[in-house]
Amino acid sequence: MSTIDTVLARIDADLDTSLSRLFELLKIKSISTDPAYAAECRSAAGWLAKELSDIGIAASVRDTDGHPMVVGHWKNGKPGPHVLFYGHYDVQPVDPIDLWHRDPFEPSVLTREDGSKIIVARGASDDKGQLMTFVEAARAYMAVTGDLPVDVSILLEGEEETGSPSLHPFLEANRDELTCDLALVCDTSMWDADTPAISVMLRGLVGDEITVRAASRDLHSGHYGGSAQNPNHIVGAIIGGLHDDAGRITLDGFYDGVIEMPDDVMATWNALGFSTDVFLGDIGLKTPRGETGRLPLEHIWTRPTAEVNGMWGGYTGAGSKTVIPAEAHAKFTFRLVGDQDPDKIRAAFRSYVHSKIPGDCSVEFKDHGGSPALRLDFNMPALEKGKKALQDEWGKDAALIGMGGSIPIVGDFKRMLDMDTLLIGFSLEDDQIHSPNEKYNLASFHKGIRSWARVLDELSRR
Amino acid sequence: MSTIDTVLARIDADLDTSLSRLFELLKIKSISTDPAYAAECRSAAGWLAKELSDIGIAASVRDTDGHPMVVGHWKNGKPGPHVLFYGHYDVQPVDPIDLWHRDPFEPSVLTREDGSKIIVARGASDDKGQLMTFVEAARAYMAVTGDLPVDVSILLEGEEETGSPSLHPFLEANRDELTCDLALVCDTSMWDADTPAISVMLRGLVGDEITVRAASRDLHSGHYGGSAQNPNHIVGAIIGGLHDDAGRITLDGFYDGVIEMPDDVMATWNALGFSTDVFLGDIGLKTPRGETGRLPLEHIWTRPTAEVNGMWGGYTGAGSKTVIPAEAHAKFTFRLVGDQDPDKIRAAFRSYVHSKIPGDCSVEFKDHGGSPALRLDFNMPALEKGKKALQDEWGKDAALIGMGGSIPIVGDFKRMLDMDTLLIGFSLEDDQIHSPNEKYNLASFHKGIRSWARVLDELSRR
Repeated sequence: MSTIDTVLARIDADLDTSLSRLFELLKIKSISTDPAYAAECRSAAGWLAKELSDIGIAASVRDTDGHPMVVGHWKNGKPGPHVLFYGHYDVQPVDPIDLWHRDPFEPSVLTREDGSKIIVARGASDDKGQLMTFVEAARAYMAVTGDLPVDVSILLEGEEETGSPSLHPFLEANRDELTCDLALVCDTSMWDADTPAISVMLRGLVGDEITVRAASRDLHSGHYGGSAQNPNHIVGAIIGGLHDDAGRITLDGFYDGVIEMPDDVMATWNALGFSTDVFLGDIGLKTPRGETGRLPLEHIWTRPTAEVNGMWGGYTGAGSKTVIPAEAHAKFTFRLVGDQDPDKIRAAFRSYVHSKIPGDCSVEFKDHGGSPALRLDFNMPALEKGKKALQDEWGKDAALIGMGGSIPIVGDFKRMLDMDTLLIGFSLEDDQIHSPNEKYNLASFHKGIRSWARVLDELSRR
Repeated sequence: MSTIDTVLARIDADLDTSLSRLFELLKIKSISTDPAYAAECRSAAGWLAKELSDIGIAASVRDTDGHPMVVGHWKNGKPGPHVLFYGHYDVQPVDPIDLWHRDPFEPSVLTREDGSKIIVARGASDDKGQLMTFVEAARAYMAVTGDLPVDVSILLEGEEETGSPSLHPFLEANRDELTCDLALVCDTSMWDADTPAISVMLRGLVGDEITVRAASRDLHSGHYGGSAQNPNHIVGAIIGGLHDDAGRITLDGFYDGVIEMPDDVMATWNALGFSTDVFLGDIGLKTPRGETGRLPLEHIWTRPTAEVNGMWGGYTGAGSKTVIPAEAHAKFTFRLVGDQDPDKIRAAFRSYVHSKIPGDCSVEFKDHGGSPALRLDFNMPALEKGKKALQDEWGKDAALIGMGGSIPIVGDFKRMLDMDTLLIGFSLEDDQIHSPNEKYNLASFHKGIRSWARVLDELSRR
């Protein structure tokens, strides 16, 4: 039996213990956006550093101004590329909590009607389940060979869900330590449950929050209605004017730098057999809302978007309250593509908001971070090796796809450390990441571990 | 010393005990809109029934489908008009609680920089402080004379802040018991701290709440952004389209039945010396927002308005969350004037909302009640007696004013019991009713009690 086959057999045999280790990590409430969970974030980092060290990869918890990083190294002077694996141990908040069928931090494996099994917990897919596929692959290799096929460094962060504020300074301060030949990132999805995918195009992100203020206090609408400014109305008008009737975003210069896909790329994507009916049907919808005249895959992969992720103002409890609130709020994110400039987008947004603020009102902004979009090199050598490994494991060609979400780290690796990234992940569209009842298919976890073992094996070959 | 002078002296002597009784009532957390406080509402009703009975006015707590009523009677066959006094013991919610300087249900008397004293607590002004001015006036009369100068019935409700859902059926079921010659209501304000007022014009109210739904669950904006409908955007567009650039409300037929004030009424109001600078300056604003070309007094008294009292959807916690929520919400109230028909306004609003709901989305409405506007008869005999009593107490003519707020009971008394209402109240614009740090001037409370004693005395005269 070849080494890789022995490693794969070991992975199969150890699946139950791999799963119980994942459960330990899933139980840690590492919600990065809420300061109340800072200690849990640190606890998740500590758990991971210990796991890596137990495997034999010397790792430590490294402080930042925010949640800590975990960094580990296994350097043996192997001839193949030295890879840096990246993942994040932080998770999204769990609200609305009443829509969860179980405690989001008490993971369980459920069997679905078709007999398939899923791991249910916050972070099961994004990104604890995914990052553990790599850790468990490394563990199996070490157990079988006492070594890894290539030199491996590992970087795990705890602020991915909050725009990674500490990442730039950390990469800057540890440039030499973290610069490798190639980055591996496991935070993306498959094309479908049978078809692996490598993501070659990622949208960027700009996040901004507004607080509109008018009167110095909440007012009785009977006394001041019609006369005093109502911040709810201003925020409503800002939201209502952000798109035109054709679904295009109205900010000045918003589409500068947006690139139309070449015909041959569009042809490849059309061949993927993407079904709008299934895509929207899964979530109870039928009709794509975005820019008219565009395919839904374009809406998700290659067109920029604007979304109001949250808005609130005034009385939101039961019943009625005749109040004019002193302030109202909204959180916005813009997905960027092509060469759209995050700074220019933020400036155009803020200028638009200012144009909607009447006398007597003021607005305050809160910057929730930003990063440009990214396209990977189709001729990157590691890409062929990744495709081969995935083909061997899944028996199907890997799809080269775009990504609706944003993984700014890939841009940072390229721009700051001049390092290309291979984006391979095993999540699925129905994993409900960021939503109640997040899950990760047990098959994603199991075959994901096997996939990484194969990728490491391929990368070690000439 | 005449009887009324003896009664007034008694009121002065008893002020401290009157105040401690008011404090007992203010400590009861009778927030009617929140079902969690149902027992407190019942407790407030019980306290009031006992107080009235202690005075000698036989009173009881009367069940409804919602919070109970308190009804009491003192009928001696007096020759003057038999009056029905109305007040409400329920109060508004206290959020945002962190803006209160003290516990809203631990009342206290504070001395302001100018030496004047204020009573601070939720309900101090609206309406517990106000209703107790009448109760204490009656108590003083009974203490001095063992009688009241006219026959008095009392009706206190616990659902005024939630649209009085039980009031219609209660008036219907107890029509004979509650029909008197004249209603007295203490839930309105003075013109200013020195000038008493009788309210002769009240706006109506229509309350409606919308829930807009799109996808069957919350979505990741990276996966579905630009493609799936975002309910925040729909609610924003609904809010944003409700007014045109001239501040007029865009609903079909909204201004049907709105009446322009006669020139002589406008002249009277102009003479009141209303200062927009002071009115808006008090709340940190400068520029009236309403329909262009209208006086602020018109915005408040004689023009209809639309206000979004609350809106919410998606993530509202700290930081950023890239979610497209499954639903978004807003609470609306419309103030009505003249002959505007609440049912037609609600229908026009709902039709407008439906016109803004795209395919794939649905909307659900929650009716928060409605009532038409009301104008009182300037030639009502009791009006002259009320003016005389207030002139005697305050040394100034009472202003006959409009009311921005809504007191639907007055319309119900007229339409259901064919009973006119004298609206006399002692609150002030800066009482911060419905807001944090609600207060009632001690002078309002003290001279309010004296005023009611004088009104009862005047009403007993031929």
